[in-house]
Amino acid sequence: MPVHYATPAPDALFPVTGVRLGTAEAGIRKLNRRDLTLIEFAPGSRAAGVFTQNRCCAAPVTLCREHLAGDGSIRALVINTGIANAATGEQGMQAARDTCAAVAKLLGCTVDEVLPFSTGVILEHLPVDRLIAGLPAAFADLAPDHWHAAAHAIMTTDTVAKAASRRIALDRKTIAVTGISKGAGMIRPNMATMLGFVATDAGLSPALLRQLAKDAADASFNCITVDGDTSTNDSFVVIATGASGCLIDSASSPHWPAVRDAVIGVARELAQAIVRDGEGATKFITLRVGGGATVAECRLVAYAIGHSPLVKTAFFASDPNLGRILAAIGYAGIADLDAAGVRVWLGSQVGSEFEEVLVSESGGRAESYREEAGARIMQAAEITVRVDLGRGAAEAVVWTCDLSYDYVKINADYRS
Amino acid sequence: MPVHYATPAPDALFPVTGVRLGTAEAGIRKLNRRDLTLIEFAPGSRAAGVFTQNRCCAAPVTLCREHLAGDGSIRALVINTGIANAATGEQGMQAARDTCAAVAKLLGCTVDEVLPFSTGVILEHLPVDRLIAGLPAAFADLAPDHWHAAAHAIMTTDTVAKAASRRIALDRKTIAVTGISKGAGMIRPNMATMLGFVATDAGLSPALLRQLAKDAADASFNCITVDGDTSTNDSFVVIATGASGCLIDSASSPHWPAVRDAVIGVARELAQAIVRDGEGATKFITLRVGGGATVAECRLVAYAIGHSPLVKTAFFASDPNLGRILAAIGYAGIADLDAAGVRVWLGSQVGSEFEEVLVSESGGRAESYREEAGARIMQAAEITVRVDLGRGAAEAVVWTCDLSYDYVKINADYRS
Repeated sequence: MPVHYATPAPDALFPVTGVRLGTAEAGIRKLNRRDLTLIEFAPGSRAAGVFTQNRCCAAPVTLCREHLAGDGSIRALVINTGIANAATGEQGMQAARDTCAAVAKLLGCTVDEVLPFSTGVILEHLPVDRLIAGLPAAFADLAPDHWHAAAHAIMTTDTVAKAASRRIALDRKTIAVTGISKGAGMIRPNMATMLGFVATDAGLSPALLRQLAKDAADASFNCITVDGDTSTNDSFVVIATGASGCLIDSASSPHWPAVRDAVIGVARELAQAIVRDGEGATKFITLRVGGGATVAECRLVAYAIGHSPLVKTAFFASDPNLGRILAAIGYAGIADLDAAGVRVWLGSQVGSEFEEVLVSESGGRAESYREEAGARIMQAAEITVRVDLGRGAAEAVVWTCDLSYDYVKINADYRS
Repeated sequence: MPVHYATPAPDALFPVTGVRLGTAEAGIRKLNRRDLTLIEFAPGSRAAGVFTQNRCCAAPVTLCREHLAGDGSIRALVINTGIANAATGEQGMQAARDTCAAVAKLLGCTVDEVLPFSTGVILEHLPVDRLIAGLPAAFADLAPDHWHAAAHAIMTTDTVAKAASRRIALDRKTIAVTGISKGAGMIRPNMATMLGFVATDAGLSPALLRQLAKDAADASFNCITVDGDTSTNDSFVVIATGASGCLIDSASSPHWPAVRDAVIGVARELAQAIVRDGEGATKFITLRVGGGATVAECRLVAYAIGHSPLVKTAFFASDPNLGRILAAIGYAGIADLDAAGVRVWLGSQVGSEFEEVLVSESGGRAESYREEAGARIMQAAEITVRVDLGRGAAEAVVWTCDLSYDYVKINADYRS
């Protein structure tokens, strides 16, 4: 069970003009399970994406980069679960190319207008014949209101489907922004995440779209971690169909801020949904580190806390064993950190109030801190750790979850 | 239960001339448990140590550094478990100073000839009165053959006491090297580890002793990780009493290589014992990374594999889900790594033979690899992962363990 997250109802996901989605059972992951998703975009649609920095990246990631190297014209995404097509060498590249060619033939577009995505087991070959055989069924299933079904079809160890949607009215035109994502383990995105797709029917210039994909990833998927493992397949793509008739050519357009905010808002909701559904997660933790000399060092500290198995198990146990947070701050890698200048707070929402207690200051336990206060906050399902490094004005936020028995169980059993 | 490690029998731990050890119940950790250890050294003994690089280091670590700033003359170590005296501010420093003063008074030495060590919960104050009240009992217990008892008294979440010993004969003089260590969680030493002590009755010049402490730490405690959490209290100290009459003044002494090897051998045995007793560990994993451009990048890759919760849970499950190793290599941080040049082998001792299979090459699964071979090796209690980065001649080794339900259980329950 995820931490306070439920998939939005099908009718809460607004169709995006120019987008249709279809799913099918291709028998790649397991039998009787929709594991193949096709998303079709109207002619004139454009995409921009950010992808994993993992040097052992998957074949579909390499092909996405190639296909997006031009002006970003796009007609389809094709997504399979079950096999990641990562660490599969030249045979894996050929499988991804064959997949795109088969989709291009179905839709009557060029091969480089198709982007392929895979997620699942690494180091095993994609059964590309079964995938291609499943495409006609996915094609026949295409419909504008199949976002909900697509969110389900891209799941692997996820326990809930992840989707988010916004609608904004601009100059009597209505713009929709809808997205889906998947991921629960191997989550420590570096410039992108394990499959996030956001589409809007606003029209965006290639330059704006590329900037928006990067900004949205940085404000969402690049701020989460479940287990510190950066996937081989992380991909985040923003697609703009332009089919609403609202076209934005430059950042000075009056509509740009609203569209930008909507896309970033959807991306952040999708990213946080991944953490809430983190493998075995029972707590949602916000790590807010301020007072740093640079944003980079704030992120270093936030990730050190967020990756510490000792901190994560203490959250699981609701045990205010908060010295573990100070230990993580201390080893995060700031060589000249003055421990005496660090302050740490623990907080949570209690009813309509946000309650926060000072835990540590001047290199030790805060005078005012009482264990009962820490213990009460640690019971909450959503907890904020705030750190002031006392060195400057930079800040960063990272969202993460706890480490439970179930994380071990899920990952010890994953292939069986 | 640790992985294939048993504490040596009391008579397998050779007394070191000039060293006596005593333990007592001071009521710091829990009742009816020896939690206070005093180790006394004959006049003329010298020590050198390496300590945690954690910026939130504990008060006793700071005081050890101060006391070892001179020529390293040493008369005693005093060690408590239960409370780490870390993140305790000025009050913690005073507690460590008061502890040293009480020991100095008992032994008739100066305060800076005493080194204090603490291990246990962070952010809580040391009950220094109880500690000092327990010292006379520890003093009365001093004896040359109490290494075994001391190894037990410094344990916290350890399931077995850790000790190692060597004896070497040089020019009709017999030199003993005996050491003890503790640690099972919060283990990712950075220039030292959670309490390791090695004593020899060889005499060593201050410069040689300092070099030896660093070399021994680098070849032992600095090559292990359990959970990636660098402790606030890591300390590794080598003590040379000189009481054997064998004095070594320079690295060109004919006895130096044998003494150096014995100290490093004991340190490595102690460090590996910590991994074998890693919290919840069921497997002992050797990560051997070669073909790197630098040792630093080989270590980066080895630690990325060793810290990956996904790799560690796959070892726990004996599941050859080896793509997770490639993912970790890919995100380790070598920006220009060519995945196609990386090769990965899996190996284990089968009877008297070391069996090794090539898992991955040319960016994918090796042609010759069969899942059955990987599955067989994954069943072993001791497994070697060998990686060739294909970039140069540097290499590094890191020892680690798997991640099991029990790691979560131990750390969720630690304070209760």
